[in-house]
Amino acid sequence: MHGFSSRHTVAAALAWLDAQLRPLGAETVPLREAAGRVLAAAIVSSVDVPGFARSTMDGYAVAADDTEGASPYNRLALRVIGDAMPGSPFSRAVARGEAVRIMTGAPIPSGADAVLPAEFVETEGRPHEVLAVASVSPQKNVGHRGEDVTAGTRLLDAGRALRPQDLGVISSIGLGSVEVIRRPRVRLIITGNELLPSGTAPSGTMITDANGPMLAALAERDGAVVDFPGLVRDNADDILAALQAPADVVIVSGGSSVGIEDLAPMLVAKHGELAVHGIAMRPSSPTGFGRLDDRLVFLLPGNPVSALCAYDFFAGRAIRARGGRPTDWPYRSVRGILTRKISSPIGRVDYARVRVNGESVEPLAVAGASILSSTTRADGFVIVGDDSEGFGAGTEVEVWLYA
Amino acid sequence: MHGFSSRHTVAAALAWLDAQLRPLGAETVPLREAAGRVLAAAIVSSVDVPGFARSTMDGYAVAADDTEGASPYNRLALRVIGDAMPGSPFSRAVARGEAVRIMTGAPIPSGADAVLPAEFVETEGRPHEVLAVASVSPQKNVGHRGEDVTAGTRLLDAGRALRPQDLGVISSIGLGSVEVIRRPRVRLIITGNELLPSGTAPSGTMITDANGPMLAALAERDGAVVDFPGLVRDNADDILAALQAPADVVIVSGGSSVGIEDLAPMLVAKHGELAVHGIAMRPSSPTGFGRLDDRLVFLLPGNPVSALCAYDFFAGRAIRARGGRPTDWPYRSVRGILTRKISSPIGRVDYARVRVNGESVEPLAVAGASILSSTTRADGFVIVGDDSEGFGAGTEVEVWLYA
Repeated sequence: MHGFSSRHTVAAALAWLDAQLRPLGAETVPLREAAGRVLAAAIVSSVDVPGFARSTMDGYAVAADDTEGASPYNRLALRVIGDAMPGSPFSRAVARGEAVRIMTGAPIPSGADAVLPAEFVETEGRPHEVLAVASVSPQKNVGHRGEDVTAGTRLLDAGRALRPQDLGVISSIGLGSVEVIRRPRVRLIITGNELLPSGTAPSGTMITDANGPMLAALAERDGAVVDFPGLVRDNADDILAALQAPADVVIVSGGSSVGIEDLAPMLVAKHGELAVHGIAMRPSSPTGFGRLDDRLVFLLPGNPVSALCAYDFFAGRAIRARGGRPTDWPYRSVRGILTRKISSPIGRVDYARVRVNGESVEPLAVAGASILSSTTRADGFVIVGDDSEGFGAGTEVEVWLYA
Repeated sequence: MHGFSSRHTVAAALAWLDAQLRPLGAETVPLREAAGRVLAAAIVSSVDVPGFARSTMDGYAVAADDTEGASPYNRLALRVIGDAMPGSPFSRAVARGEAVRIMTGAPIPSGADAVLPAEFVETEGRPHEVLAVASVSPQKNVGHRGEDVTAGTRLLDAGRALRPQDLGVISSIGLGSVEVIRRPRVRLIITGNELLPSGTAPSGTMITDANGPMLAALAERDGAVVDFPGLVRDNADDILAALQAPADVVIVSGGSSVGIEDLAPMLVAKHGELAVHGIAMRPSSPTGFGRLDDRLVFLLPGNPVSALCAYDFFAGRAIRARGGRPTDWPYRSVRGILTRKISSPIGRVDYARVRVNGESVEPLAVAGASILSSTTRADGFVIVGDDSEGFGAGTEVEVWLYA
């Protein structure tokens, strides 16, 4: 039992980590499953949308010249020679003095160059005749070919997280699938002889795993495919086998401090690289990370608040980046006024849970990293940098809101 | 072909809608699938977490009295009688003059009432002996039973959208599943004889469905289970059969205006209640909605920007509310300064797509509701209320950011 020989600063730990972060390769997914996925390549249209000129109104397709001078006092007769509907174009040409009844979205028949809206005609005349009571200019109420998307246009850039309307546009140019960044495979290794699996009642001196369900949900929120087959016994063979399972990112919870049973850091150091172990922050100071072959491995403390904080600072950042997403926190921030001071020594980054009531930001009076319920009572957290001794009551601070 | 006889205001349309919105019933889901789901009932713990007093440090469990007066100049010997580790408690009692080596999280043995941290002992003495060089007071470095969660505590209220850490806490009290509001079943009915199914290249005067993929992704974002078996032919039998499929919410796109082929409004009016049809807004004025048995039915314009806007105003609101979520937009808003004016007549609500560059908000110069690509170029939208003629250049406005 010994302490960490020296602690990394958060900045130094992040510098090592950020140097490792490259997005994964691409995969093709059906459009129907692509919402929220990150484009691996730009989307360029090979077609015009629409591929034809169409009416933007319900009315009559005409040669605009035929309506010149039309008014309620000078009603001009047009012979209605047919209908044009979306998907059912009028197949012949429109000659002078003729009109085609047309619906919004229908193709403009050849010979016509404008649409006279339905409210500008009267239908009291002879059968198959309408009376124009207003004029239209050429191209009026006509949507030109390619007005939504022109062939050759780069619609969306690589790196775009696809929104619902992006899927609509991609579908409209005829694509049924897209190339997106592969989702990171995240292996969760939850160890600890004191742990019972989730779904089991805590009993005696055994506690029920909280970190597994929490970390799985965090990683999935950040775009991962999670592999969490169950608790791993705290012995070297089982932990090493789990560390070597196929994965892009491995998250170990428990067994990551410097106690006598802390096998995971030793195994990472032996079989890979343990780049960081011990960070000047609270909670989460026992956090470590490194590499094992192609895997980024995060050693998170077993205490659940520490695990959450270390996930927020390090593991989530890596998962988002490997999935092609911004490293930024997926939390929005608000500003508010502290009701009580938050103290923190120079040289340490603090992650302080707070409640937000309107403009007020109230630090939760919790000491330990073991009080997970503090993060469900909290609305978010305030970060105190390692160059700060904290914030006095009445200070305006930035709060990152849990979501 | 005739216009809407009168248009509802957006406020009147929302008033009818909001009166219909009741959350669906509950279902039980495994904790592993509960992230983001909405609790149907409060979570109350029936257990203490932890269920025992535990060490918050690595060190030695002792009777605090035994350390009284200890200092580097007055080293007090304690006999080490065993180890306590998480999941491996020390099973006997600690007597005066004795200590048990203990790790963070391990149960405090009976007879001990404090933990002397490892850095406050020297181990150079006899075998099975440590020398205390500092004193501890009773309960020091001891986490008491129930310090995280006390039996009987209401941890989370009904209506809570579950966060990752909530799953951790729920797991820690022994629950493997939770009662959540059922996800709304949303049936998409996409009609239009001009449409080709998504995944098909547009051809001639046919266009490829954009609304289906977009609306499916929007509804899933808002918590729905989407049923979208493919395009529905624009005839009364097929549309009626689709309207009567099992669903909580039905969204019809296309065939919802007042043109000659607009069957959906007629069918809803005949077989259910068409409460709203025609709304004083742009785009989306042809939007309608009503009920058919237990289903809320939304008739969205076929133009994709109109469909998006009508979804944002009405259908999404209903899906979120029926799923137990807030009716608020799931978009965050920022404030910025308009670079150009946005005009809108009194009496109409406008949904104006904008780009955001730092503080600048630039309205997109797009006329039509058919330009879906305008919503992928846009960063969000600005709403002009029906009591406003719009905003001049230089006005500070609120922008809702697409996500």
